[in-house]
Amino acid sequence: MDLPNRIVIREEGPREGFQIEKGPIATADKIALIDALSHCGIKYIQAASFVSRKHVPGWADAEAVVGGITASAGVTYSALWFNEDGLNRALAFKDKLTLSGSISLSASEAFSIKNLNRDRPGQIAAMRAFVRAHQAAGVPVDKIIVMAAFGCNFSGDIAPKQVVAAVADGMEIAADAGLSINQINLADSMGWATPRRVAAAIGAVRECWPDREIALHLHDTRGQGIACAYEGLRLGVTRFDAAVAGLGGCPFAGHPGAPGNIATEELAIICEEMGIETGIDIEALIEAAKLAERVVGHPLPSAALRSGTIASFRRKVA
Amino acid sequence: MDLPNRIVIREEGPREGFQIEKGPIATADKIALIDALSHCGIKYIQAASFVSRKHVPGWADAEAVVGGITASAGVTYSALWFNEDGLNRALAFKDKLTLSGSISLSASEAFSIKNLNRDRPGQIAAMRAFVRAHQAAGVPVDKIIVMAAFGCNFSGDIAPKQVVAAVADGMEIAADAGLSINQINLADSMGWATPRRVAAAIGAVRECWPDREIALHLHDTRGQGIACAYEGLRLGVTRFDAAVAGLGGCPFAGHPGAPGNIATEELAIICEEMGIETGIDIEALIEAAKLAERVVGHPLPSAALRSGTIASFRRKVA
Repeated sequence: MDLPNRIVIREEGPREGFQIEKGPIATADKIALIDALSHCGIKYIQAASFVSRKHVPGWADAEAVVGGITASAGVTYSALWFNEDGLNRALAFKDKLTLSGSISLSASEAFSIKNLNRDRPGQIAAMRAFVRAHQAAGVPVDKIIVMAAFGCNFSGDIAPKQVVAAVADGMEIAADAGLSINQINLADSMGWATPRRVAAAIGAVRECWPDREIALHLHDTRGQGIACAYEGLRLGVTRFDAAVAGLGGCPFAGHPGAPGNIATEELAIICEEMGIETGIDIEALIEAAKLAERVVGHPLPSAALRSGTIASFRRKVA
Repeated sequence: MDLPNRIVIREEGPREGFQIEKGPIATADKIALIDALSHCGIKYIQAASFVSRKHVPGWADAEAVVGGITASAGVTYSALWFNEDGLNRALAFKDKLTLSGSISLSASEAFSIKNLNRDRPGQIAAMRAFVRAHQAAGVPVDKIIVMAAFGCNFSGDIAPKQVVAAVADGMEIAADAGLSINQINLADSMGWATPRRVAAAIGAVRECWPDREIALHLHDTRGQGIACAYEGLRLGVTRFDAAVAGLGGCPFAGHPGAPGNIATEELAIICEEMGIETGIDIEALIEAAKLAERVVGHPLPSAALRSGTIASFRRKVA
């Protein structure tokens, strides 16, 4: 087995979680959770979402949250935005946040229409304008995100060539703007990934762009998220998004169920137990996961947050 | 990727679930769940546990449950027992149940002491007597179960050579009794399995006994059960235990958390979506999983029981 020696996990629990939780969740609780996550050895935390206050009320207090967190040395705090208004809101925090933009495209036009109200040409045009706004503001754009990369609740199966087409659109947008793309993030927005689909999509993308880093953004919609992450590890993927306690889910994914992200602590445990470094203090992270449950006020999907680490049992019998 | 074309799943939800649920669960509800499972295309159902009524009160009504279920054509119903008393109780149902015995040994002596109150020589002696009782009753013994095959909450890491030692003990017991063993079941009794440990244990066992079928019994203690099952599939394992809705757990495993088995519907979905036949009607199984939740009276771990199948979304957009 040819697993990587170390991986980078980007914590998306706050951003993903607060957008979908019914709430309302007090701003102070959001800050407390992010501050707790800042002391778990996580290097990247997506700390806020500057999105429509009307459509995503859970992030209406993004400014107050970012203003309130205590930045910890060694942690990079990022945020998400989808339009120029969001970018401008983020710019107010350019000293506290590490701002960088992404070209977000969907491998499923149906999802793009549902999620962003734009067809493929419309989304390409929007991303060209979005890139220009970043360049005008001096904010780098170095990443392509492919939403619905493994399947779509609104259009069904997604073939690897559709993923390649979305990446190609993004590469063209970047090239026309004189940007270079370092990372391609394949996002399982609606929980269709299987290990086989992960392997097929990664294979197709690598064939076209062998020197770009691939990241995986996986949901655990049907208990298979960690299996898909494991397939990514087997294929040498070293960058993953995850969410403490399995928080999260897209409010526009059309899911009745429990569509949270893969739980950061479960990804960290499988890595630690297979000798892959994450830099994460998993015991501290499980305490943060328990705090996340208290903050949202209901049980969250992670089993590890209840079972604890294997390492804790190992210590007991040592 | 060299995945099998089809696998066999043995449903252990009733046996595993009712032993650990606080209950009490009405006998009629137990029967209703097993009858529902009988119509999901599952070929093997472990329908009861003839164990100590005092130590496992959830199965005190094993006779009434087995007597009450409606056997369905094409389904093999089995039961579990650990001593001669249990065997004798099962024999009363030899026309309704397919009786076969297992040589159960633990790769961790500490777990054997905790779970069965017997050290390694004690368990070997008990299994020799157990085998003789089966032979006297005309009940076949064709399987070795290795408990704690991937790690132990009471002794820590388990090396593949300890698994091999336990299988070797079982093979010797079988050979001395003139029995032949067809199947070796590696059980992750306490949720220590990772894909790497699964691969190492399977590799070590196959090196010694290349012609025996290996089965996996996995728990989803930290969200990694399906990843471990996937590793088994990659290595050509075609026989898995699983539990509807993720029911289950060993009452003596020393776990505070959510130690259920891998959920049958989640295993079936990953298989179906990768082209591996299970024969299971997953939509019907998800209805049975919902019934299981009603029967036990609290949410069960399976995410798929809430999210539904990918196939159901595929049909909607077809």
